[in-house]
Amino acid sequence: MSDSDTLILVNLKAYPCDPVEIAETCAAVADDTGARVAVAPQAAHLAAVADTGVETWAQHVSPVEHGSHTGSTLAEAVADAGATGTLINHSENRLKLADIDASLDAAERAGLETVVCANNPAQSGAAAALGPDAVAVEPPELIGGDVSVATADPAIVEDSVAAVEAVDADVDLFCGAGVSTGEDVTAAGELGATGVLLASGVAKAADPEAVLRDLVSGL
Amino acid sequence: MSDSDTLILVNLKAYPCDPVEIAETCAAVADDTGARVAVAPQAAHLAAVADTGVETWAQHVSPVEHGSHTGSTLAEAVADAGATGTLINHSENRLKLADIDASLDAAERAGLETVVCANNPAQSGAAAALGPDAVAVEPPELIGGDVSVATADPAIVEDSVAAVEAVDADVDLFCGAGVSTGEDVTAAGELGATGVLLASGVAKAADPEAVLRDLVSGL
Amino acid sequence: MSDSDTLILVNLKAYPCDPVEIAETCAAVADDTGARVAVAPQAAHLAAVADTGVETWAQHVSPVEHGSHTGSTLAEAVADAGATGTLINHSENRLKLADIDASLDAAERAGLETVVCANNPAQSGAAAALGPDAVAVEPPELIGGDVSVATADPAIVEDSVAAVEAVDADVDLFCGAGVSTGEDVTAAGELGATGVLLASGVAKAADPEAVLRDLVSGL
Amino acid sequence: MSDSDTLILVNLKAYPCDPVEIAETCAAVADDTGARVAVAPQAAHLAAVADTGVETWAQHVSPVEHGSHTGSTLAEAVADAGATGTLINHSENRLKLADIDASLDAAERAGLETVVCANNPAQSGAAAALGPDAVAVEPPELIGGDVSVATADPAIVEDSVAAVEAVDADVDLFCGAGVSTGEDVTAAGELGATGVLLASGVAKAADPEAVLRDLVSGL
Repeated sequence: MSDSDTLILVNLKAYPCDPVEIAETCAAVADDTGARVAVAPQAAHLAAVADTGVETWAQHVSPVEHGSHTGSTLAEAVADAGATGTLINHSENRLKLADIDASLDAAERAGLETVVCANNPAQSGAAAALGPDAVAVEPPELIGGDVSVATADPAIVEDSVAAVEAVDADVDLFCGAGVSTGEDVTAAGELGATGVLLASGVAKAADPEAVLRDLVSGL
Repeated sequence: MSDSDTLILVNLKAYPCDPVEIAETCAAVADDTGARVAVAPQAAHLAAVADTGVETWAQHVSPVEHGSHTGSTLAEAVADAGATGTLINHSENRLKLADIDASLDAAERAGLETVVCANNPAQSGAAAALGPDAVAVEPPELIGGDVSVATADPAIVEDSVAAVEAVDADVDLFCGAGVSTGEDVTAAGELGATGVLLASGVAKAADPEAVLRDLVSGL
Repeated sequence: MSDSDTLILVNLKAYPCDPVEIAETCAAVADDTGARVAVAPQAAHLAAVADTGVETWAQHVSPVEHGSHTGSTLAEAVADAGATGTLINHSENRLKLADIDASLDAAERAGLETVVCANNPAQSGAAAALGPDAVAVEPPELIGGDVSVATADPAIVEDSVAAVEAVDADVDLFCGAGVSTGEDVTAAGELGATGVLLASGVAKAADPEAVLRDLVSGL
Repeated sequence: MSDSDTLILVNLKAYPCDPVEIAETCAAVADDTGARVAVAPQAAHLAAVADTGVETWAQHVSPVEHGSHTGSTLAEAVADAGATGTLINHSENRLKLADIDASLDAAERAGLETVVCANNPAQSGAAAALGPDAVAVEPPELIGGDVSVATADPAIVEDSVAAVEAVDADVDLFCGAGVSTGEDVTAAGELGATGVLLASGVAKAADPEAVLRDLVSGL
């Protein structure tokens, strides 16, 4: 990956980490290296994370507009709190097809960059047909594991790049699941990915900064 | 529509009609005219409907294999009861993207023909990327109404035909919502649809046979 | 268990068994012994199972009335196919609280006997407050296992009996999860249960009839 | 309502209001009158709302613990952002029975006060069996309307008070739906409610402070 826009997106899920501490580390590494590193915390932590100056993403936005939607995650509210992008349809938060479409509308309305997650090449193509900025292919069986998808199953990344390209050449392909080293980032880039999603690799690391610097070295 | 394979699919939903009586009428009209007419009853009525000799479809199959799935609609079970096709992701039963994919796998495994429903052209393209036999575009706001989608919003049908064609030229495009007359069937065919879905137009008709004969006349 | 109304309910889930063969076996054992044995097959198999003369249950009914509910499991349709009772909220098909309430309304409307499943004593009490005929407590971690809930965790059955009794003394308490022998049935009865749910113990047995005769011996 | 602990809970849903401005108004009225007024904003706005000093509630917490739950609303995260209580199972965000139970566990773990919403007396009793601090009965057909539940259907409040009392006398009963005036608050208190939920009555008011002062006058 040499594209200066390549994104390293750190998803904090519901991990028991300190989101601000990780955000500060990501911001420092990004400032220091010029790499693009973003953090996706819990919605309730968005404002505190954004205050660190790091690029901040939501983990999800609801397929709704302003109105009577108690308990929703309104795109405008996450933007208001400082998010500039959002994951949609993460494997831990799968959405109905019609709701992915509506969540993309909501994110676009609020000016958020969008990455729709998908399990496999067919679903990656389907997600691309809805017009997000990027699709992230993450085989569920590799998420949280030690082996990167780009190493364990390079074909799934290549096939997803091809499936997305065939549907809409303007949509980028990210990959996730098991990414934890600079080598993984390089391998993903060589397969055609322009971004990586990772979570436990940083959030549960003994030394998150060392992991981040290693990741960035693979760009 | 002049394609001899064009399908008129009558979805009985959860209507308070007599499924066997409607099935017998559909079978008679199909036999008489050579048209392809199928009936999609409640799962519990599949066997009785199939016994009439009419082409029988399920309204839904679950994204599961054999196993511990209480309350699911197993593809093999509906095939066993006589279904030869199934709707998936009807607007009244929207599925997660990953589950549409898995329901298609299940249907294929059981030898069922598949039609994935979609709201609009973008979702039609997305559904096509998953490789069903056909996609049915049905704008939710027109379902159950008096005006056919082909009349009310021809662009949505044409755009869906184009979106599906762009993704996978082997996938057919059906249309639904408001179809009730032979003219509607003709209009749908002229826009590129090779099948129509209808429900209340037949199931709630005073004279279902007359409606069916009119529909078939539009082929 | 000596109550002549004690129910042995065999849930076939989505298992790859022959539902009619198991239904015939259950019917024969019930006829032979006077025990109450019911079978809950896939909705698509209800009619074939009911034709054997066995007491037939649905695995689920949807929280809907007649109307536009494609892919639902209408209470009237399962009754029409021969079901006389239904499970609701099985751990493999958990429902929203409001939908359990509406599914109970639907089942009552169609004249179906009702058993609402629950995970633990608190949920058993909650389910009882909605007025079903019975609540079945099935700790999810024991379902499909070799050890009966009445043996592995008798307190959960006793506490559920007490929780249900405290809310509505007219509601029976069944238990499930791991039940496979006559001893399990006896143990369940001694703890206050008036019915047992089982599935793999019969559906996957090499000799279902032997298992059923053993189960009935525990009444 | 004369109980000094009586809660006026203002749910901002996904309304296009300024959450901080409303929070400041609520804080000012609470300080001025000694009444208990809380605000439940979007999760992304919790920190900003809590910073005003007003009592802050979440609209929802997910039925999860720390872990791999992307897009969830972790109880610890909303507490960390300043929430001291949470709604659960609002009619716009209905949960599975087992998930209400798990969300209550999550809220308790994070030290949050809990109010479980319910549609009717039967569901109120069911919710009470799960041991929340309070149950809020809100007939869905009255939510967002002009007529308070205590006026439109006093029996539903009285029956819910009785249903909750019968199950667990330690659980309070709140009511919602259509509450907008001090008279509504007084009427609710006379029926046995110790809290009211309202939303559009404040969030969409031309003069929220005047509405709040009127509401408080009914305590």
